[in-house]
Amino acid sequence: MAKRSQKKVKPRVLKGFRDYPPAEQIAREKMLSSVREAVELMGFLPLQTASLEYAETLLGPHYSKESLAELFGFRGPDDVDMALRYEFTLSLARYVAEHSELPLPFRRYQYGNIWRVDKPGPGRFREFMQFDIDIVGTQNLLADAEIIAAMVTIFDHLGIEDFEVRYSNRKILNGLIEWAGILPERGSDVLRVLDKYRKQGEQAVILELGSGRKDDSGAEIPGLSLPADQIDHIRDFLHEAIKRDTKDPLSWVRGNLSGFRQAEEGMSELEAVRDHLKAMGIDRSKAAVDLLIVRGLAYYTGPVFETYLTKLWDYGSVFSGGRYDNLVDRFLGRSVPAVGSSIGIDRLLAALIELKAFKYERATSQVLVTVMDRHRLPEYLKMLRELRDAGIRSEIFAGDTKNLTRQVRYGDRVGIPFALIAGSNEFESNKVTVKDLASGADQAGKTADREKWLKAEGFQETIPRDTLVSYLKKRLRES
Amino acid sequence: MAKRSQKKVKPRVLKGFRDYPPAEQIAREKMLSSVREAVELMGFLPLQTASLEYAETLLGPHYSKESLAELFGFRGPDDVDMALRYEFTLSLARYVAEHSELPLPFRRYQYGNIWRVDKPGPGRFREFMQFDIDIVGTQNLLADAEIIAAMVTIFDHLGIEDFEVRYSNRKILNGLIEWAGILPERGSDVLRVLDKYRKQGEQAVILELGSGRKDDSGAEIPGLSLPADQIDHIRDFLHEAIKRDTKDPLSWVRGNLSGFRQAEEGMSELEAVRDHLKAMGIDRSKAAVDLLIVRGLAYYTGPVFETYLTKLWDYGSVFSGGRYDNLVDRFLGRSVPAVGSSIGIDRLLAALIELKAFKYERATSQVLVTVMDRHRLPEYLKMLRELRDAGIRSEIFAGDTKNLTRQVRYGDRVGIPFALIAGSNEFESNKVTVKDLASGADQAGKTADREKWLKAEGFQETIPRDTLVSYLKKRLRES
Repeated sequence: MAKRSQKKVKPRVLKGFRDYPPAEQIAREKMLSSVREAVELMGFLPLQTASLEYAETLLGPHYSKESLAELFGFRGPDDVDMALRYEFTLSLARYVAEHSELPLPFRRYQYGNIWRVDKPGPGRFREFMQFDIDIVGTQNLLADAEIIAAMVTIFDHLGIEDFEVRYSNRKILNGLIEWAGILPERGSDVLRVLDKYRKQGEQAVILELGSGRKDDSGAEIPGLSLPADQIDHIRDFLHEAIKRDTKDPLSWVRGNLSGFRQAEEGMSELEAVRDHLKAMGIDRSKAAVDLLIVRGLAYYTGPVFETYLTKLWDYGSVFSGGRYDNLVDRFLGRSVPAVGSSIGIDRLLAALIELKAFKYERATSQVLVTVMDRHRLPEYLKMLRELRDAGIRSEIFAGDTKNLTRQVRYGDRVGIPFALIAGSNEFESNKVTVKDLASGADQAGKTADREKWLKAEGFQETIPRDTLVSYLKKRLRES
Repeated sequence: MAKRSQKKVKPRVLKGFRDYPPAEQIAREKMLSSVREAVELMGFLPLQTASLEYAETLLGPHYSKESLAELFGFRGPDDVDMALRYEFTLSLARYVAEHSELPLPFRRYQYGNIWRVDKPGPGRFREFMQFDIDIVGTQNLLADAEIIAAMVTIFDHLGIEDFEVRYSNRKILNGLIEWAGILPERGSDVLRVLDKYRKQGEQAVILELGSGRKDDSGAEIPGLSLPADQIDHIRDFLHEAIKRDTKDPLSWVRGNLSGFRQAEEGMSELEAVRDHLKAMGIDRSKAAVDLLIVRGLAYYTGPVFETYLTKLWDYGSVFSGGRYDNLVDRFLGRSVPAVGSSIGIDRLLAALIELKAFKYERATSQVLVTVMDRHRLPEYLKMLRELRDAGIRSEIFAGDTKNLTRQVRYGDRVGIPFALIAGSNEFESNKVTVKDLASGADQAGKTADREKWLKAEGFQETIPRDTLVSYLKKRLRES
């Protein structure tokens, strides 16, 4: 402990960091439980790796001081360079390389905080929670189908209906690049532009492939200056495969890209995944082929997945991944095939709150036992005990005030739905008063009215003391 | 992503850090859920604060570069000194100081990792999980009783019977110091020595108060060189209050320390807490007064608590805390009273595993669907779907091998209790074979035998295909 000082410290969180107050944390925990339950139903195993890693684990053997500073990296105890993880995949790779005894395929999930030195902004934090699922050590496309099925199952468990998993295969787009006569080294630039199709539309894409365009603010976006015939090929693909043929997006590919090895491989992989999903009973309305799924990360090698909330397309993908077959080569010098997907828990939660698919519950307690008369404390504590023994989440007012209105106001502000009140009237007649803070507070509306209401005897009922538990159980079931 | 390189990185965790493999993580999650359920039953609210804090939040305004290096502290982005939290209390204080709108008392729980630059050793890690409960903003001793009740409830929820919460009040020991004629500035030295009574016994304590002693290895432990009459007072206390009077440890205090203001205050506080616990129905066998509970931390101001596993006394306290009434003065310049307690989750889990009160479950899947014939994949996937729809946690073998024995061995090594096998015989007769890996593997014993057994047709049953779900549900209920 540091010495006390007269100088005060300003209470504040670091830039880009945040706390999760109870209402949000209750929702997060509920969401996490639900996601965990979904993936455990599918046999994924929980793993927790260390939050700090050797710098070289995250950055490779030739990292610089500058690259270390791009993470939350530093020279730590024992003069070792270390950094907070910025994703889980490298830690998973390190773990798999370290544990040669691990039975493969390894279906693992991991959730927890990751840290990134991005510029903070609205909804962009430097510490946030991510949930990853991966299947490591198999090339079998059943694993890819299982990842997609897990994505669907997670949304089902969360009670969300308005979502769509979209999947594709990188190799098809590579084949497209080849077919269009575009040089392989320009491929990733072209894919980056194609990735804008859903948001910006065809014309923007075509302009960016050519001479460039101005964005909404009038700023210049330089073009790739592809020759006209290459652009024509891409336009053809966008017209015929993407725009028109929504029933079977693969028929155009079959007709035009056959003979291109990568495209053919991608097609047969995509069809295998689609067949597996069908046999698993995953409906096409929940997981469908979308040839324009590109995924930003360079390391995806085949199947790629994204998930959209169909009432919030603007959010972009909330759950994405793909196959990456070079997982542990940094450590082992050989590749281990893997496929996985990750959710940004807090971003998804924000979306679900917006969709009203999830709501904040402010309190854990369902009942507040107030203390009107401290001499009767044993009797209030007996009520408390009965409630808890019956599994009703409850607390006794443990603050310093004896004032009943202030005690009830505490319950109202915390968001506890019911308050119990008992004074000499109640004790003499073996009764107890139950005040319905939740619906009462709703009715009372604004703060001023609510203050009046807290003191008034509205929204309350005096019941026989021995019916307390059954009465509350009934009320709680109804609410 | 860093560039690839021929040089390989050694896969390893940092010194003092560790991963939690699935078997341990499953047990941790189970334990955490149980603890959370217990404290939510008592109205504690979850809070998550940022993992990194401003250096001055953790160290006070006048910290040095050296004190920063005693934490996982560093100069981070935007040239700000920051550090990973080494406990939750300072972050709680910072949060409370920042949120003047918070209804008080604030019952909050927080769990998560904390980081300490201690010298790593067996069972001592630099990153570990802690679970804290606190009630902030009240001097009402009901809050102290609620914290003790929560400690008891947590163990009850965990299904642990062999534990004892011990509580006392710092002020009584302060009164004892006064009564013995010991100078207040020597008080904390004397308490530090008294704290050794349970482990080292009376004689060791008396020697350390006087001329010193040699420990078991022969090393010199210097004494406090108290005058004989002061030592006699302490001996008297140890004899009469601690050793003899186990029924009412307070009667000696009442008889000898009355008139000493601190001791009298401590006594009446201790009695209030005891009365509250009694009224809450907490049995004395679960939470009892123990005047020798000292607690190391300087900041406890009154009630203090510890918890022992009565079949593992050597572990020391597994859940400890107390009242600390100077919580947010670093930030606000005024005190906010608070009381709380923390568990080291991993240390407690290790103890419970040792007590066999908790056991590791290696797998999440209860059933492995093997794939004997890839042409029948849709039929295997249909089984998988039926199992999952029935809530049976299950997976299909998604690895690269077609070899059935290797698939079954995978299930055995992961720890999945049942494997389904179906080949042309089964398909033609509308049947499926269920292999009991769990009890079979137990019987088979050592690895060599198990290998033989995996290939043999032991511990398996062939059942009608349409009874699959009900058969497995029954078997899983039995196991």
